[in-house]
Amino acid sequence: MLGSISSIKKAYLAGFLDADGSIYVRAKPNLTYKYGYQIALYIVFFQSVKDKDKFIKICGLSGVGKTRERKDGIVEFIINKIDEVKQFLKIITPFLILKKEQAELMIKIIKRKEKISSKKDFQKLLDLIDGYRDLNYSKKRIKRTLTP
Amino acid sequence: MLGSISSIKKAYLAGFLDADGSIYVRAKPNLTYKYGYQIALYIVFFQSVKDKDKFIKICGLSGVGKTRERKDGIVEFIINKIDEVKQFLKIITPFLILKKEQAELMIKIIKRKEKISSKKDFQKLLDLIDGYRDLNYSKKRIKRTLTP
Repeated sequence: MLGSISSIKKAYLAGFLDADGSIYVRAKPNLTYKYGYQIALYIVFFQSVKDKDKFIKICGLSGVGKTRERKDGIVEFIINKIDEVKQFLKIITPFLILKKEQAELMIKIIKRKEKISSKKDFQKLLDLIDGYRDLNYSKKRIKRTLTP
Repeated sequence: MLGSISSIKKAYLAGFLDADGSIYVRAKPNLTYKYGYQIALYIVFFQSVKDKDKFIKICGLSGVGKTRERKDGIVEFIINKIDEVKQFLKIITPFLILKKEQAELMIKIIKRKEKISSKKDFQKLLDLIDGYRDLNYSKKRIKRTLTP
């Protein structure tokens, strides 16, 4: 499991994530959830299917996540269970350079998500997620507000 | 310089190169060269200009190569001096996974290039380079033969 992987492997995965991975979070409107949003967060790596076997070996280093082959010739490695994202970021973040800020904010988002006990808490979480979007894409910020 | 960088940094750079870098060699027809070809070889990394400062920091880890900002919003890091490519590959290759074979073949190409003393030697070098193209792109092989 993740805790026991060597610093060499962690540094390798950090380089891989910095170069071509994504750390992503989204609040998806979904009325079946208590506060009207589903929080989807994940880490994803991509490679061409021609390197599939070696790529699966790399993904396996982390001991979390799963790979799937898409129809367009891309193999995707995705970590989307919140505990696994948290574990992965906890050990990889110290070695990140390009995506360190995103990773730190994502850890903060996960911690806040774990402590939600009111609508006000949830609004703060949405604000953090909006902040994350700014960091990741520098796109026009979409301000989400819970309807009262 | 390269010899003194830590294994952690080497592993990070290997992950970065595996995810998004290129190791490239080409025999360019050029009659001003003794055997009619210029051998161009390089390692290159790319990132969006929005991460320029951090990216330059990463490139600086290696102590070789140079960065330049392109007009299309991409910052390119290139190592194209043969001695620097050789040095870089020598220390990074043990940590590579996806591009290990390319790196090993490139080292072989460089060593063969250093020992050329006849047209026959040069033909062998061209054959190795053709083999490299196969490995890298799985494209239709262009068989180059020196005119007698």
